[in-house]
Amino acid sequence: MSAPVRFQVRASEPGGLARCGRLETPHGAFETPAFLAVGTQATVKTLDPRDLREAGCRIILANAYHLALRPGAERISRLGGLHRFMGWEGPILTDSGGYQLFSLAPLARATDEGVDFQSHLDGARQTLTPERAVEIQEALGPDIAMVLDEPLGFPHTREEAEAALARTTAWARRSRSAQRRSDQALFGIVQGGAFEDLRRRSAEELVPLDFPGYAVGGLCLGENKRETDALLAAAADVLPEEKPRYVMGMGTPADLIRSVRLGADMFDCVMPTRHARRGNLFTWGGRLSIKRNEFAEDPSPIDPACGCPACRGGFSRAYLRHLFQAEETLGQRLMTLHNVFFYQELAGRMRERIRAGGFASWAAETLAGPLGQDPEGPPRGQGLRRGPAGKLLRPTPPGED
Amino acid sequence: MSAPVRFQVRASEPGGLARCGRLETPHGAFETPAFLAVGTQATVKTLDPRDLREAGCRIILANAYHLALRPGAERISRLGGLHRFMGWEGPILTDSGGYQLFSLAPLARATDEGVDFQSHLDGARQTLTPERAVEIQEALGPDIAMVLDEPLGFPHTREEAEAALARTTAWARRSRSAQRRSDQALFGIVQGGAFEDLRRRSAEELVPLDFPGYAVGGLCLGENKRETDALLAAAADVLPEEKPRYVMGMGTPADLIRSVRLGADMFDCVMPTRHARRGNLFTWGGRLSIKRNEFAEDPSPIDPACGCPACRGGFSRAYLRHLFQAEETLGQRLMTLHNVFFYQELAGRMRERIRAGGFASWAAETLAGPLGQDPEGPPRGQGLRRGPAGKLLRPTPPGED
Repeated sequence: MSAPVRFQVRASEPGGLARCGRLETPHGAFETPAFLAVGTQATVKTLDPRDLREAGCRIILANAYHLALRPGAERISRLGGLHRFMGWEGPILTDSGGYQLFSLAPLARATDEGVDFQSHLDGARQTLTPERAVEIQEALGPDIAMVLDEPLGFPHTREEAEAALARTTAWARRSRSAQRRSDQALFGIVQGGAFEDLRRRSAEELVPLDFPGYAVGGLCLGENKRETDALLAAAADVLPEEKPRYVMGMGTPADLIRSVRLGADMFDCVMPTRHARRGNLFTWGGRLSIKRNEFAEDPSPIDPACGCPACRGGFSRAYLRHLFQAEETLGQRLMTLHNVFFYQELAGRMRERIRAGGFASWAAETLAGPLGQDPEGPPRGQGLRRGPAGKLLRPTPPGED
Repeated sequence: MSAPVRFQVRASEPGGLARCGRLETPHGAFETPAFLAVGTQATVKTLDPRDLREAGCRIILANAYHLALRPGAERISRLGGLHRFMGWEGPILTDSGGYQLFSLAPLARATDEGVDFQSHLDGARQTLTPERAVEIQEALGPDIAMVLDEPLGFPHTREEAEAALARTTAWARRSRSAQRRSDQALFGIVQGGAFEDLRRRSAEELVPLDFPGYAVGGLCLGENKRETDALLAAAADVLPEEKPRYVMGMGTPADLIRSVRLGADMFDCVMPTRHARRGNLFTWGGRLSIKRNEFAEDPSPIDPACGCPACRGGFSRAYLRHLFQAEETLGQRLMTLHNVFFYQELAGRMRERIRAGGFASWAAETLAGPLGQDPEGPPRGQGLRRGPAGKLLRPTPPGED
């Protein structure tokens, strides 16, 4: 069967690892480094497909776990698949739901067979196997699907990390065999927890399965930035150069820059969308909270240099602050447009710098500036811990993205 | 001073009262009958200005009471006025807040001087006089402002209605004298409660003040449709033919048709927007609740014959139902676009029928069809009653529109 996606590295940083590429999918091509806006429930919260295009999105992410529970993967299939369902004609990647299972579902438990869990919506007992995860995603019909993996809470022991790694590899193998559709790419996921050698081992075990792309999962869960970099570097070093590398659930603008420097190509994160709904806005001069009193009569847009629909549209900080205070959802949408645009622009600038040369010095300068001082907030996995029954717990409300 | 708005009746129903007109304002002209989408807090909930244009809106309503409390009328003035603040370049009408005061503010009490109340936001004691209501609206800068009136709860006695009428006339006179801006029209408001002769008297007292337009307030608060029609007819009969007539807070599609038949020109109501957020959709075949199970796999748009952005955009009933179930605000926005478009189309069809002839038979047919059977729901003023201290109570949550 012909490859469902085709990846080409088109420019590389001289003497470095950063690269700029192009990934072709059945629903069009996009350039890397690429940031995927998160549309968990078949909508990037507050935005419609035209908004997404105007914010510069070329590929988006949806979540197979959420969609399988509601409205149901087979239902979406009968309605013509995910692209048609949500009216988005560009590429889509779905996450298998491994992370969501362990963070949202009550009593999730991994066995060698799969994950037993209760639906976070109605408490119904279900089992998700690697085969079923593939089947669900083949029904949904994204361009790129992800294998089911077993993520780890933080902190964890080496023994726990080894066990999850072994299971993740075994599941990856079963997932590969379960594939039926030839028009959908399936990416493997590197685990290995907080141990560099296990990250290498995980990647080494996956490479022979010849996935068309590889993700690195379980980063930014509580380890510090230096550790994150070391874990990503260990995995990237083993992964084949000619395949795209996708860092899942990452991160701040600084996280993205540091990871691109280590050879990463794709990212997804709730950060731009979730922050926007809380009134936290990204700019090249650093973050800005729309709640602040100083903006009450500020007639300027969020960022006068920004070309996003909210800034170009003439919506002032004062108006956005008013909408936020008045709990009007238009404010959430305008601020989401801005933040998503910012992340797309960040990815675009990295692509330019890699193509034109000078990425290393741009990255160093940028990390020394406001984006490098960017407050991190609590790590993504704060509160994610292994419960008494081997369950991973996380207090994020269901459906948050 | 030259007239801030200019109204022209361009076509009338032969042998009837319905008419089609054109109102010119400093921010452009619009045709009547016209429906004003409600943007209480300087945003028609979930929609941006481009959405409003695409939904066919030509003039919108905002609420002076809400905006004076937050973010403040003088603040909006310093930011360049309401049009600039919300990015809407077309005509705007502001309601003075009489109705909101008595329905939302704790302990609102009318005296001859004005209304004493507590802010529904922070409990601060304030007084709104007719002069201050004009001043607030001159600061906000809409094209059309409304006088402060004293609305009545339902039911009420003749004595209560006479007292509120007398005060409303006295306040209208003071409002007229308080006007400073020559580029803003001030409309008077007919009250008179549930008594036809008092409605006539109210209109007769206002006409000598020569307002550029007249509203009829306090309808649809609990009386039946026959009574509503009789009260409106009594007022309209006295109001000058060459001035626009605006029925405040009305109504269902059938209400609009019946009122146009009685000579009304303008309407505003939260019905299309509020219903949309609750998943209740207007179509020419009657209402439709997106929650219903039968839509779970329905690939058709809300109304296949509809040209609104949601229906044209290919969003299926199944997708909208999913968004509603998943509490995604995109669903609220798409359904709001549909309902607002429907109301604009309704107004447009009435204009066409008046211009082309045949309005009377079209109205009779339409009222005999699904729109005439339209469920009313509880009247707008259900629960609105006169409290022990002469206060009108209504349980609608603040900021709902």
